[in-house]
Amino acid sequence: MVTFKGQHILEVGQFDRDQLECVLSTADKMIPFAKRELKTRVLEGAILNNLFFEPSTRTRISFGSAFNLLGGQVRETTGLKSSSLAKGESIDDSAKVISGYSDIIVMRHPMSGSVSDFAKASRVPVINGGDGTNEHPSQALLDLYTMSKELKRFNRTLDNVKVAMVGDLANGRTVHSLSRLLALYKKIEFTFISPKELSMPINIIEFLIEKGHDVIETQSMEKGIKNVDIIYQTRIQEERFANQELANKFRGAYRINQFFYSQFCQPTTVIMHPLPRDSREEANELDVDLDKNPNLAIFRQADNGVLVRMALFALVLGVENQIEKDAKAVNWFVGKR
Amino acid sequence: MVTFKGQHILEVGQFDRDQLECVLSTADKMIPFAKRELKTRVLEGAILNNLFFEPSTRTRISFGSAFNLLGGQVRETTGLKSSSLAKGESIDDSAKVISGYSDIIVMRHPMSGSVSDFAKASRVPVINGGDGTNEHPSQALLDLYTMSKELKRFNRTLDNVKVAMVGDLANGRTVHSLSRLLALYKKIEFTFISPKELSMPINIIEFLIEKGHDVIETQSMEKGIKNVDIIYQTRIQEERFANQELANKFRGAYRINQFFYSQFCQPTTVIMHPLPRDSREEANELDVDLDKNPNLAIFRQADNGVLVRMALFALVLGVENQIEKDAKAVNWFVGKR
Amino acid sequence: MVTFKGQHILEVGQFDRDQLECVLSTADKMIPFAKRELKTRVLEGAILNNLFFEPSTRTRISFGSAFNLLGGQVRETTGLKSSSLAKGESIDDSAKVISGYSDIIVMRHPMSGSVSDFAKASRVPVINGGDGTNEHPSQALLDLYTMSKELKRFNRTLDNVKVAMVGDLANGRTVHSLSRLLALYKKIEFTFISPKELSMPINIIEFLIEKGHDVIETQSMEKGIKNVDIIYQTRIQEERFANQELANKFRGAYRINQFFYSQFCQPTTVIMHPLPRDSREEANELDVDLDKNPNLAIFRQADNGVLVRMALFALVLGVENQIEKDAKAVNWFVGKR
Repeated sequence: MVTFKGQHILEVGQFDRDQLECVLSTADKMIPFAKRELKTRVLEGAILNNLFFEPSTRTRISFGSAFNLLGGQVRETTGLKSSSLAKGESIDDSAKVISGYSDIIVMRHPMSGSVSDFAKASRVPVINGGDGTNEHPSQALLDLYTMSKELKRFNRTLDNVKVAMVGDLANGRTVHSLSRLLALYKKIEFTFISPKELSMPINIIEFLIEKGHDVIETQSMEKGIKNVDIIYQTRIQEERFANQELANKFRGAYRINQFFYSQFCQPTTVIMHPLPRDSREEANELDVDLDKNPNLAIFRQADNGVLVRMALFALVLGVENQIEKDAKAVNWFVGKR
Repeated sequence: MVTFKGQHILEVGQFDRDQLECVLSTADKMIPFAKRELKTRVLEGAILNNLFFEPSTRTRISFGSAFNLLGGQVRETTGLKSSSLAKGESIDDSAKVISGYSDIIVMRHPMSGSVSDFAKASRVPVINGGDGTNEHPSQALLDLYTMSKELKRFNRTLDNVKVAMVGDLANGRTVHSLSRLLALYKKIEFTFISPKELSMPINIIEFLIEKGHDVIETQSMEKGIKNVDIIYQTRIQEERFANQELANKFRGAYRINQFFYSQFCQPTTVIMHPLPRDSREEANELDVDLDKNPNLAIFRQADNGVLVRMALFALVLGVENQIEKDAKAVNWFVGKR
Repeated sequence: MVTFKGQHILEVGQFDRDQLECVLSTADKMIPFAKRELKTRVLEGAILNNLFFEPSTRTRISFGSAFNLLGGQVRETTGLKSSSLAKGESIDDSAKVISGYSDIIVMRHPMSGSVSDFAKASRVPVINGGDGTNEHPSQALLDLYTMSKELKRFNRTLDNVKVAMVGDLANGRTVHSLSRLLALYKKIEFTFISPKELSMPINIIEFLIEKGHDVIETQSMEKGIKNVDIIYQTRIQEERFANQELANKFRGAYRINQFFYSQFCQPTTVIMHPLPRDSREEANELDVDLDKNPNLAIFRQADNGVLVRMALFALVLGVENQIEKDAKAVNWFVGKR
């Protein structure tokens, strides 16, 4: 039987297909709690230390709210300057000390590999909330979960799906991780759409082909998205670029609006995006006129983040089978979910 | 019957007199909980996202503590730089995403109108915690509640009350909002005391007169406060001024100390202030020698903030009639309240 | 009977020996809760306001987690700039207002004496979390608790113990406070090891001698640590120095590594350190090769901080005898503690 009890969640490479299915089905169990139909106190008394040494408002809140929804308490640290790491303390020491204050830790840090180093010395499970350009596994898992759910609307599964990934594929942590997860499914058709300068790293392409999947690379948006089931759009992560000029050059180059969608996409093509999307004039990756398109899944995707993070907490702390035990009806006003 | 269930609290203009009375009487119900005689878990499992994109320590803590006192959990965000809004995300997108992590949201933001925009896209109720120079309704409500409570000590009600508002009436968000709320009561006498450069905006004066109230404007502190029931003193909001010179000019120009009070005020005149008061040498708006004056209501006013915010949370989430249900006696040491 | 109910915890000088024993034995009672064998809800509904006007990640988290472990809620403020104190509000006013939002307050502030001033005006108990170079009593208490526990492994008590304190003894708040606490025990032998420029203040040395203890001062590490039971190593608090040059001069001058330990220390000598230790190349105070030495107590010491802070909260809020009442077994995965 699949178990995650006591394990760190550090990188997508640690998951096999059975484990993925377990995360996805556990996330499904969280729906009534995240929709505020039911509430649970299963983690009453447990403490999450949410360490965000690099800012990321939505990821931080999403993890914190997920833990609260399970009944646990959240202690939070934001910013790097004020931390002991800045006084010359090793990551090892930090981990030994902070893990003594926690039942579980989520850590985000600008330096690649720092979260794994931290996890090695920690006495409690650590979830990687993003370590520089390296990994952000909960994002990849929520993306995968969203794909699975969106396809279910059309009676499809992840096997044999056609996915286009668009934008800065060279620097995009999310598209790399998501590709590796999808590779565990059967016969995926990947279409990678980007300017040459920002194309998908060759090692990932080789990995996908070796696993038996199809890979198409193109610079043309129109051609690339024509037959796909899902478009995974990414923003130009300007902070990853060497200079502003380069960032500006590709800003909005691959934008999608409703007119474009009607003209070139399948009527059931799902649009995803890891968010935030840049909505400044001329900078849109996804125009707001898509917001009424029922296949724009970006906000469902953000909501799914809570489900997947609840699932990870429940699995790692080994309470996935206790959730429903003392569930109660929510007793306050709940709007549309 | 009055209900606030599922409503946003965005501006004082949304309240009629019945609704005000409902807020005030619900705040009264919160007294044993805020005084730590009783505790309640009525919002156990509910999540407040306390979004302070502009710093305001006391308002932030007051909202957070109020939610905790009802048994709920608080997730918090402070600062603007680290937020997704800084990456070009629209307020609309932020609201759609963050409302998926929340049962209710309090938002403070430096830009006028931003909280209403956010509320439009939010799937959960939003309380305006202050949007620039525009509105800060919970402050106005706690001011009104304080007036009502202080007058009750003298067997008075808000009807027919004489109120002096002092200081920077041109830029003071609190005095504008409070005036509009008081206008819903009967025959108020407003005395506005300020230098000409900082006088109450004409549209508010016209509004009050139109509603049948009396308005007196004066630059003289001695004359203005002579017969009033309540003095509402405000600090020079230096950050609102164009230059430091102007700020300095009016600093302390309308200060009150105990000697002044004894000489010119009625013996029952109540003194209020939205706080913080500037206690630096020569800058006092209210001298500390007033602290022993039983009619200095400023700290009761701050305490009332918790009551009013508890009331707003309870009303908006529709649990105002469940509060006492499972109330228990507080089991730890409680000092003087 | 010893009671702390409703008292502030401001400085080590407030404790007599009976009170110390009470803190230490209450800390012992917290072990099953901190080790996550049991959980308690004894402070369910209580609110800690954790005010860190000076950054200190580990102390902040340690206090917050300790309060959560007792079932209470934590509101948190970090940084000085955003606080009302920066707008000219007096400490007195801040205390009156914030204590209305709290059941207990922990405050850290860069200015000596500020926490006592705050406590005077507060309506709820205040624990000093460090006020500049002045006091940090919970650190001294956890240090004392750690010494007591480590000595117990060798069937020893604090009476007659030989302690070496090493490093910046002139500016080190922790060594001053710890010395004063140890002075309440019988016949302690203090060895103070430091460069002349950073030697222990004469008033503390005189105080210890007056209380009947032995004091040895030396600049030689080898001689000083030869016969001691406990070495209390401190880091060079660079931020306390007038200039970087002076800081650099003494950096690493008194470092200990395993080779040094084997050569010069007793086989049972315990090594302590308030942490964080500087682990940068050439800057170590305690080399990482000591991490496998069973007498390196630094991480147990950090863990003990949670126990002692839980004890302080329980004692000050008068719930120390209610803790076990409704204790339950922890129902989630717990790793090695």
